[in-house]
This record gives sequence, structure tokens and C-alpha cells, in this order.
Amino acid sequence: MLNFRNDYSEGAHPNILEAMRVNNLTPVVGYGKDEHCAHAAEMIRERFNCPAADVHFLVGGTQTNLIMIAAALRSFEAVICAETGHINVHETGAVEATGHKVISVRKPDGKLTPMDIITVLRGHPDEHMVKPRMVYISQSTELGTIYTRRELELLRKVCDEQGLILYLDGARLASGMTAEDCDLMPADLPRLCDAFYIGGTKNGALFGEALVIVNPALKPDFRYMIKNQGGMLAKGWLLGMQFEGLFTGDLYFTLGRYANAMAMRLRDGLWAKGYELAYSATTNQIFAILSKDQIFELTKEVAFEFHSSWDKTHDVVRFVTSWATRAEDVDALLALL
Amino acid sequence: MLNFRNDYSEGAHPNILEAMRVNNLTPVVGYGKDEHCAHAAEMIRERFNCPAADVHFLVGGTQTNLIMIAAALRSFEAVICAETGHINVHETGAVEATGHKVISVRKPDGKLTPMDIITVLRGHPDEHMVKPRMVYISQSTELGTIYTRRELELLRKVCDEQGLILYLDGARLASGMTAEDCDLMPADLPRLCDAFYIGGTKNGALFGEALVIVNPALKPDFRYMIKNQGGMLAKGWLLGMQFEGLFTGDLYFTLGRYANAMAMRLRDGLWAKGYELAYSATTNQIFAILSKDQIFELTKEVAFEFHSSWDKTHDVVRFVTSWATRAEDVDALLALL
Amino acid sequence: MLNFRNDYSEGAHPNILEAMRVNNLTPVVGYGKDEHCAHAAEMIRERFNCPAADVHFLVGGTQTNLIMIAAALRSFEAVICAETGHINVHETGAVEATGHKVISVRKPDGKLTPMDIITVLRGHPDEHMVKPRMVYISQSTELGTIYTRRELELLRKVCDEQGLILYLDGARLASGMTAEDCDLMPADLPRLCDAFYIGGTKNGALFGEALVIVNPALKPDFRYMIKNQGGMLAKGWLLGMQFEGLFTGDLYFTLGRYANAMAMRLRDGLWAKGYELAYSATTNQIFAILSKDQIFELTKEVAFEFHSSWDKTHDVVRFVTSWATRAEDVDALLALL
Amino acid sequence: MLNFRNDYSEGAHPNILEAMRVNNLTPVVGYGKDEHCAHAAEMIRERFNCPAADVHFLVGGTQTNLIMIAAALRSFEAVICAETGHINVHETGAVEATGHKVISVRKPDGKLTPMDIITVLRGHPDEHMVKPRMVYISQSTELGTIYTRRELELLRKVCDEQGLILYLDGARLASGMTAEDCDLMPADLPRLCDAFYIGGTKNGALFGEALVIVNPALKPDFRYMIKNQGGMLAKGWLLGMQFEGLFTGDLYFTLGRYANAMAMRLRDGLWAKGYELAYSATTNQIFAILSKDQIFELTKEVAFEFHSSWDKTHDVVRFVTSWATRAEDVDALLALL
Repeated sequence: MLNFRNDYSEGAHPNILEAMRVNNLTPVVGYGKDEHCAHAAEMIRERFNCPAADVHFLVGGTQTNLIMIAAALRSFEAVICAETGHINVHETGAVEATGHKVISVRKPDGKLTPMDIITVLRGHPDEHMVKPRMVYISQSTELGTIYTRRELELLRKVCDEQGLILYLDGARLASGMTAEDCDLMPADLPRLCDAFYIGGTKNGALFGEALVIVNPALKPDFRYMIKNQGGMLAKGWLLGMQFEGLFTGDLYFTLGRYANAMAMRLRDGLWAKGYELAYSATTNQIFAILSKDQIFELTKEVAFEFHSSWDKTHDVVRFVTSWATRAEDVDALLALL
Repeated sequence: MLNFRNDYSEGAHPNILEAMRVNNLTPVVGYGKDEHCAHAAEMIRERFNCPAADVHFLVGGTQTNLIMIAAALRSFEAVICAETGHINVHETGAVEATGHKVISVRKPDGKLTPMDIITVLRGHPDEHMVKPRMVYISQSTELGTIYTRRELELLRKVCDEQGLILYLDGARLASGMTAEDCDLMPADLPRLCDAFYIGGTKNGALFGEALVIVNPALKPDFRYMIKNQGGMLAKGWLLGMQFEGLFTGDLYFTLGRYANAMAMRLRDGLWAKGYELAYSATTNQIFAILSKDQIFELTKEVAFEFHSSWDKTHDVVRFVTSWATRAEDVDALLALL
Repeated sequence: MLNFRNDYSEGAHPNILEAMRVNNLTPVVGYGKDEHCAHAAEMIRERFNCPAADVHFLVGGTQTNLIMIAAALRSFEAVICAETGHINVHETGAVEATGHKVISVRKPDGKLTPMDIITVLRGHPDEHMVKPRMVYISQSTELGTIYTRRELELLRKVCDEQGLILYLDGARLASGMTAEDCDLMPADLPRLCDAFYIGGTKNGALFGEALVIVNPALKPDFRYMIKNQGGMLAKGWLLGMQFEGLFTGDLYFTLGRYANAMAMRLRDGLWAKGYELAYSATTNQIFAILSKDQIFELTKEVAFEFHSSWDKTHDVVRFVTSWATRAEDVDALLALL
Repeated sequence: MLNFRNDYSEGAHPNILEAMRVNNLTPVVGYGKDEHCAHAAEMIRERFNCPAADVHFLVGGTQTNLIMIAAALRSFEAVICAETGHINVHETGAVEATGHKVISVRKPDGKLTPMDIITVLRGHPDEHMVKPRMVYISQSTELGTIYTRRELELLRKVCDEQGLILYLDGARLASGMTAEDCDLMPADLPRLCDAFYIGGTKNGALFGEALVIVNPALKPDFRYMIKNQGGMLAKGWLLGMQFEGLFTGDLYFTLGRYANAMAMRLRDGLWAKGYELAYSATTNQIFAILSKDQIFELTKEVAFEFHSSWDKTHDVVRFVTSWATRAEDVDALLALL
């Protein structure tokens, strides 16, 4: 079975497993107050050029999102996102469970613009409605699209003008930032976002997301918030150790670049065969339009996900590549089409 | 530095790490719907003789507690626990954050009795007060004490009579159930509790707790609840795989028995030297009464935790053993005293 | 200044104030456990033909909605409503503050259909998304439209088939049920809804909504829920007394019919003058399309609300009538147009 | 039947009802943005000498407490109160329902001291426990006791030193402030508290509490919070109008003084007859120790509440006086004893 189901189907990059093995019996202080976490945080602050940022390591993406959002907002404050945003669709109401409305905006490409923000604000003028207070975006988005530097700068500008917090979900940051059409540099993220997270789960770690908090107003007592929401890992060094591995020799972005290369190999192959794609395809998610018959046949030999209906005879399916995807698997998939 | 700080200072039992290494690159379906989780659940149902129970694997104890409690209670319902209970003291208000009051009862030994429950119920007669609905206990408790079969049966009885849910926190279940004075058998837990969890983090796993839900009324839609509270691990098989390891060859209880043996070696040594202990000492936490001077000296060579004041010149300190404690470390600690 | 701003600009129907005056110094037991509440509940059960229903009296509509919804749903369950629904727009995230997602559906007329429900359910197939569990509708809606008996029966059917709770917000129930095109009878509401509320604030009471719970599964411990959410009025008899007044001589529907008559007088006058209305106009809210110049002029002599933009030169404004609106005020408004 | 059950058994002082009657048909803008509310707020700012305070009018005490506390605290922050505190016992977990732990301290007289605060803080040193952030007290307390100026100043001092918010529940403020042993002046409250509320429900209003927010950090967006928690009254002017009445001619404190006079008449009568009281008795709650036989007899002719057990043959009962208590009723009660 060829696997293009998602980018979290395998364990960890071997370097990471090896570090865990080597350190296995060395006693370490718990809850993320160890040297591995401190070191990994320092590596991240350096790589992203944000020497004053706070870095917290969390186990998963939904957890990271709900804790960051709940920490930043008061009860009546809301977060704006694209209708396809992960917090709006795929987190089982985790943000609402902390008491906050998610205001969603319909966007065919999954990306918010300053005008979207302004429109939402105009529709929420007073205390009879929630108060929009945070903008949530993803890099790359759920649809595999990316924000360019210019786009992110414009979002920053509107957030500054309107007193909004800009938070970037980087579950697929490695792929997003190394996409061929992405001109954002790591140092742009802390410059333009109040907070963002660096996804490990989908890029070489067993699990783990590194939350980077840049805005000083969001920093106080954050560890209380993590524990309060059940997110503090007893053996926290397991997170630090993995991010040490990911930021040694820039492995993190190297893996992202590799996942993209596999995706581009697939995309180019699909194009060569005359297939159409549903969205811009420069990151590790390829949304292909296939006939229903073809999809039915394909499920016998390939693991992948249905995404949406296209027309009476075609659907959109999603193929995802990762650091663990092999070139021969891509070729095998193409051969089947 | 000798390490008696706690039972989660090291990684995992080598068997577990090895399983993770071997399976590392095999694609697996995510979110705990894989064969490892299915197999581990089956092993647990068999070992605890509860063929109809639901088993869910979660990352940590606070997370498990808050999800189980929030899933079981309506907004105005409360959970009763000993004042020393983990949910009352050491979870940063995680239960309250899901909206529920924790009603605590002062108990010198950390254990609830039927009379405690009755007294709480009498004090909460109508809708102007919260409605007590769940009893939370731990085996072993925060003070290292244990419930015997008779005690647990009496708690079950009062819960049945009063319509209460009995939930047992088993963060230290391996040590508790293998204590020299514990006559509870694994099969007693599903017989007497509505739900309980089997702690992995403190007994040989990198992380992970297996929540066993026996009462059918608590089962529906539990996976929704896990995701809703940010507790669903993407690579869920990592949890299943660890519990497969822990229940292969009864490793789980073997490790607990070993931790207890190390604790008894320490306890007996302390007694032999004339030290007094603050609580009954049959599990892997030993609470010794030491002079403040001695404690000061000891901190130079041993990692351990202050527990409470005893008198003007003495404090209670806690020494914890685990599957990773070596006999020579116990002896070295004793030699220092 | 002519007042068409809303239907809660005046105090109470004189009968109600008089009852409060007469009983003012008679000691009564608090928290709604008095004879007035018991009597009013009985009158409601009789008028709506639901002898087994529970009736609770609450102070306001947002409070009633949030308490009913929070009482009925588990943390991961969501409520479906029209995008214009009061809970989605005008309650400042009160439902989300209790932890639940509001799933909104775009509907030009503010009314949900069975197909809307089915579509939402199809989009929420598993535990990675919230679980739709309740359907929230209003009679009349925020746009002044109403559900007919047939429409409500079809919604009931889909709710039965899909295991959903049907809850009807009756903030403007008196006007909705007495509309010229409404064929629903009071007895239809408990027959077709799991719960609904009878709005007093907008129809002759100083304040107060009567929540009628028909579905036995929603009844237990509801008074706990009211107190838990801060909604229990100390002098609860003030609510009972007002609903006694409203259901004496069928005053409640008489006032609704009167408000509608005033609205129809306005509507017919507008039509006669060639004005167009934005929505079906059979209840006490009239949405008129006026030129911006006209609106500007009108604000000098009439209190009313802007509703939405229509085109470059026209906006939609809302005129609301009530039991306190005088026919000469309607005529004066028409004379100004 | 003589009524000493509580201080909210009757309607409103006649002046207040009359104001509501006179203004009944005058259209007023809703949600507390009317002239009555503005005027009443101004009267309060003047009477309590806090020209810069924000004043919000809410319907009930539990609602006021939960909204104020939820507005002031972050998710992991807790509020400290006496074990007998209203928020700890009689609000059905309303504070916990907003996500916050209530840390209770056992106090025989229902009053907190600086040492209590310090002890709680010492027990909550880090992020594994909730963070105490607010001190909740009542004037008078649930046991009828009061804080003197000196005591309140010392609490203010410890709050300043420890970065805590001091919030005073004034459900019975009128009685508390006019007690014979109370040397606090109205102007002391905003000087010493970050926020406090002036209870109307138990002192002459139909309903209503005036929340006074002094600390600027607690002011922003408070109306959002009120609506978000379901506490915004549509016909908000009913609250303003009542407080206008209560602060016209200092009626508020006059009524409190009267209630106290009735209580002192009762207390002195009890003392004269040789009865003992369970607590200091200078406000409108008298806790008398009566034999169980006597209590049984008394219930035939007097409405009052059981408070607690005293010894095998005696219980403590509570007699409450109010603005509506008549001197002849006190005498009649005394005659029965």
C-alpha cells in the first residue's frame, strides 16, 4: 500500500529516536524545565531571530491552539479565521470549549486578507456581539496555500491598526516556509506575528509543537495556562530533545524542503499527465481532481483522503508527502494514474 | 547525584523504546485507531477482566482526569476528593477550568471513607449548592497510602446507594496494587469502579495513561471529548505500543513490584536507623521525618522533595523509587543518613 | 419622538404593574418556589396543552438560551442555527462561553429547513469535528418571518430521525403565533419542540421568559443549572406574577395580536405609498427599504434602527411595533413618509 | 405567620414601585444606557466618593459575583474566601462554572485576615497549583459579622503587597455599614476595594445590585462581559430607577439602619430572656441558640431558617430582619420565646 494519507503516519526522524535512546536512563528534571528544552528554545530563538521570545513545547496542535487562544482572549473575545481553518473545522470545538467564538470567513483559498478582517470588525460594533480580538492563520493553510511576506505584512498592519493579535499556526510550517513561492524568512515570523508555533508532529518528530510567544503581553504566567489546560508533559524533556534534533543542522527545514520536493515531483507528474489541481500546489499537500472511477480504483493500492466533491463525475482528493515519503512511492503513484 | 525526586525522571523501559524503534517507519493510521491501540486495549481488558470496558489512551494524568471528570459531570455537578487529592492541589485548577467544583475533605491519610461521602452529601441538599456526583480516589494516594479491597467495596456501596460515580486515579497503580498490604486484584477495579486509569508515565512508559471506562453510561462519544479537550494524540499508536509493551509478560506490575521492593529496602533501612515515617509506607513513596540540618546536608548529594513541616526542627521529605531505581542507590542514600 | 425602535422600550402592561403593587408587602418564599410561579406554570401548561411539561421562569432571553443550551449539550456538542439567529449574532458569545460551538447556516429568510440540517450533519461525520446535537429556531425570526405548522413538522421529523433536540426561541412568540400567515396553534409547540420559551420582555412584561421543557430527558436538575449560571431570581415570584397576568384572559396573545395589527397598519400604509419591504411582513417587525436621504430626515422625528444596506442609495430600516404602540403613532409615521 | 426567614421576602419600598408606575409608558433606550442608570450611577459615585468609578447595574448577587470574578481572573487564577463565603457555598458552583477555583479558608466568624491570605499564598508557590489572585469578602458576612475599617485596611495592605484584587460582596451592605460597631464610611469602600457591589435585592429594591469598579484595570469592556454571561437586562432602566430611589434622601442606608434597629430589638429581647447567640450580632441577621423543642414549636408560627447544629439538644437558627420588618412582629416573636 502506498501511503499518501497524511504527514503523520510514521514515527520520528532517526536522529531523534537515537537521542531519546541515548539519554533514556539519565535522570532529568520534569515539566520542561530541563536543559534540553532550554537548549532547544535557544536554538529556535536564534534560528528565528527572536532573542526575547518565550518558547513553550507542547504535545499537539489542537492543544497548542486552544491554550494560546484561551490564554490571549477574555471570555467575550473572538478569533477570526478562514472557514477552512483548523480551529474552525477539525478541533471538535476545542476553542469554543474554552469559551470563545470562532468567527469564520469564507475564502476559496483558505487565506485571510486585511479586507476580511475589516469586514468582520464592521459587523461587530458593540457589546451585543463578540469582540474580535485575534486573527488566526496557518502557514501553510489547510488547502496547501501559503502567505507571502507582503500578505503577512499587510495582515500585521491591519492588526496593529485595529488592536488585534496575529497568531500563526505552523503545523506545516516547514513545508510552508520552504515552498518555491514563499518569500518569508524565519525571522519574518516573530517580526510579524504576536505568536506562532513550529510544528514538529508533521515534520519529523514523534510529537511536539514549539510555541513561540513574541508579544510580551502574552507571556506572563503561560506555564500556568499549560498546566491548567492539561497540556504539561511530565517528561517534558522529550519535547526539548526532539526540537534539539530538528534544529541541529537545520534538519527542520531540510525535512520540509524534502517533503515539498516529493510533492512537486507528484504535482509535475500529475500535470504532465493532464490532471488538474484544485488549489495552488507548492507545499506538501496536493489536491488533485480525479474521476470517481479512478478514485475507486486507486483506493485499492494507495492510502489517501477524500477532500471534497468537484462535479458529478469528479472529486477532489488529497495526497500528502512528508519527510518519510520515498521518491519511488511518488513514481509508483503516478504510474497508477 | 542520587535521584529520589520522583518516578518520572527517566525515559522508558528498554522494551518500549525498542518497539518504537522497530516500528518507526511503518505507516500507521493516526489518532489511536491503529492495531497497537486495539491490541493494548484487548490486553488490558483481559488482564483486568473487563471484557466490555472501553479503553482510551491519553498522554498525561491531569489530562486524563480533567477529560474523564468533564465527560461525566454536568455543569453544576461536583467531584469529592481528599484535600490532598491530585485534582485538588496539583492540577492548577484543571477540573475547575472545565467548570466543576472540587469538594475537598480533610483526611490525614489521604483516603476517603463512606462517612466522608455521606457528610458531604448532607451538606449539599439542594439546588443552591453544587450537586456532588463523583468520588475521586487514587491508588496509591498522594501520601503513598492504599485502599484495601474492603475499603473500596464500602466506597462502591455508598456510591451505589447515593447515585455517585466512583473514579480511581491510577497514576501510581502499579505500585499501589503490588503493595504488601494491598489485597485488591486487578479484576477488582472494574468490578468496583465506574472508571479508572492505569498510569504509564510513572511506571516505565515515556508517557501515557490508559483510561478504562466500565460504566456504560460514561462511554458514549468519549473520543469526541478527548479531541474537544485537546487530548487526542496524532500518532496515537505511540501510546498503544507502549501499553502493549507494559502488558507483555505482565511487565507493568513487575515494574511496580520492583519499585516497591526498592522503597521497602529504603524504608527498612530507615527504620533500622531509627527514623520515623510520616505515613504508612508500603508503596513507592517514602515520607521520612528528618531534621532540617540533615535535609540541608542531604540536598548536596540527593535529589528529593520537601513535603511538609513536621516540627520546629524537623520536616517531612519524600523519597520516590521507580522501575529505574538501583539497589545501590538506595544503599548509598541510606549510607548518607 | 415617535418610537418604533423596538418592542421593549416601555415598562409593563398596567395589569401586571398593578398585581405587583397589590402584593408588594405580602411575604413570599423566594427563588420561584412560590404560588404565583406554580399558578403561572399551570396556566401555561393548560394554554399550551402540555400537562407534563416543566416550566421555569427566567429574567431574560440570552440567559434563557444559554442555560437551556448548556443544560442540553455535552462539551463537544453543537447547536445549529440560521446565520441571523440571535444566539449567533446578538448574544456576545454567550453560548460559546458555556463551551459550545454555534454552527450557522446562511439563510436569506432566517429560517432553517430539513435540508440545512442534513447538510450540516453530513459535514460533521466524526470525532474530529463537533457533534451537531440541537437545532435552534425562533418564532418569529430575527427577520420577522415565521415557521408554519408544516415547516415545523418537517423540522421535527428530521430531528427525530437524526437524534437532534429542537429548541424554539420565543422572544417574539406572541407576535409570531398570531401572525396572519401562522397556522401553528399553541398546542403545536410542545408537540413539536423539545423545549421552547414564551417571551415576556417583548410582550407586556417588565422582564421575564417562561421556558417550557417538554422532553423528559432535558428536565432533571434544571434548577441547579439556573442557579449555576447566575439565573435564579431571589424574588422569583415577580416572574410568576407577571406570567399570571399575561395568561389571564389570554392577555399574552391579545397583546401579540395588537402589536401585529399595528405592524399591518404600518405595512399596508407603506405598500399604499409604494414602498418595498425587504422581508415577508406579517409580524411586529417591518423591514422597509428607504432612501438614505429619507432615513436621515426620519431620524429627526422617529426612533428606529438601521438594519442593513440595500443598494447605493437605499438602506433597510426596521420599524417595530408592540403592545404599547398607538395607532396614531403609526399614522404619524406614515404621514412622515 | 411571622416572617423572619430572610430579607428578600417582600417586594420593593413603595417609593420605588411608584417611580416604576409613573414612568411605565415612557419609552426609554434599553440595556442600561438610559438616563435613570446614568443618574443613579452618578448618585452612587457621589455618595461613595469615587468620581472615577464605573458603576454597572445587575439583577442578582450570584450573577454579579460570577461576572466580576470571571472578568478579573485568567483561567488558572483563583479567588480566596472564607469557607462560609457565599461564592463557596450558595452559588451552585457558579464561579467554578466560569473556570475558576475558589480557595476556601475555615474561619469561625466568616472573616478573612491578612495571615489567612499569606498562608494561602505560601501553599500555592508555582504553576502546578492555581494562582491566588483575588480576595473575596462580604460586608456583612454570611454570619452577620462585619469588617472594621482597620481590618479592611490591613486586607488592602496585604493585597497591595501581594498583587491581589480585593472584592467586596455587599449583598447586605446597607445593614453592614450601618451596624453599631462598623466604623467604615461609604467613602472607605472605593478607597480600599478594587471593586464592590451595593446590594439592592435585600434592601428595598425588587431586584438589583450596583457593581462599583474602582480599579481601572478591571474596567475595560465590562459591558461585553455582562452580556456574554447573560446578565444584561433589556429594560435596564428598571435597575437605574430603583437605585435612583434608593439613593434619594439616603433611603438606602436609612433602610439598612432600620433593619438593624429591628434586629437589635430582637437581639436585646433575646438577651433579656437569657438566650445565647452564636455570632456577634450587630447586623440584620441574628443567630440564636434554641432548644430543638422550642424550634419545633416556633415553626408553627414563625418563618425562619435552620442554620446549624449546636449540641445534642440545641440548634442554631437564623432570624433576619429587613426594611419591611415591623416592630410589632419582633415583639410578637419575642413573646413566643
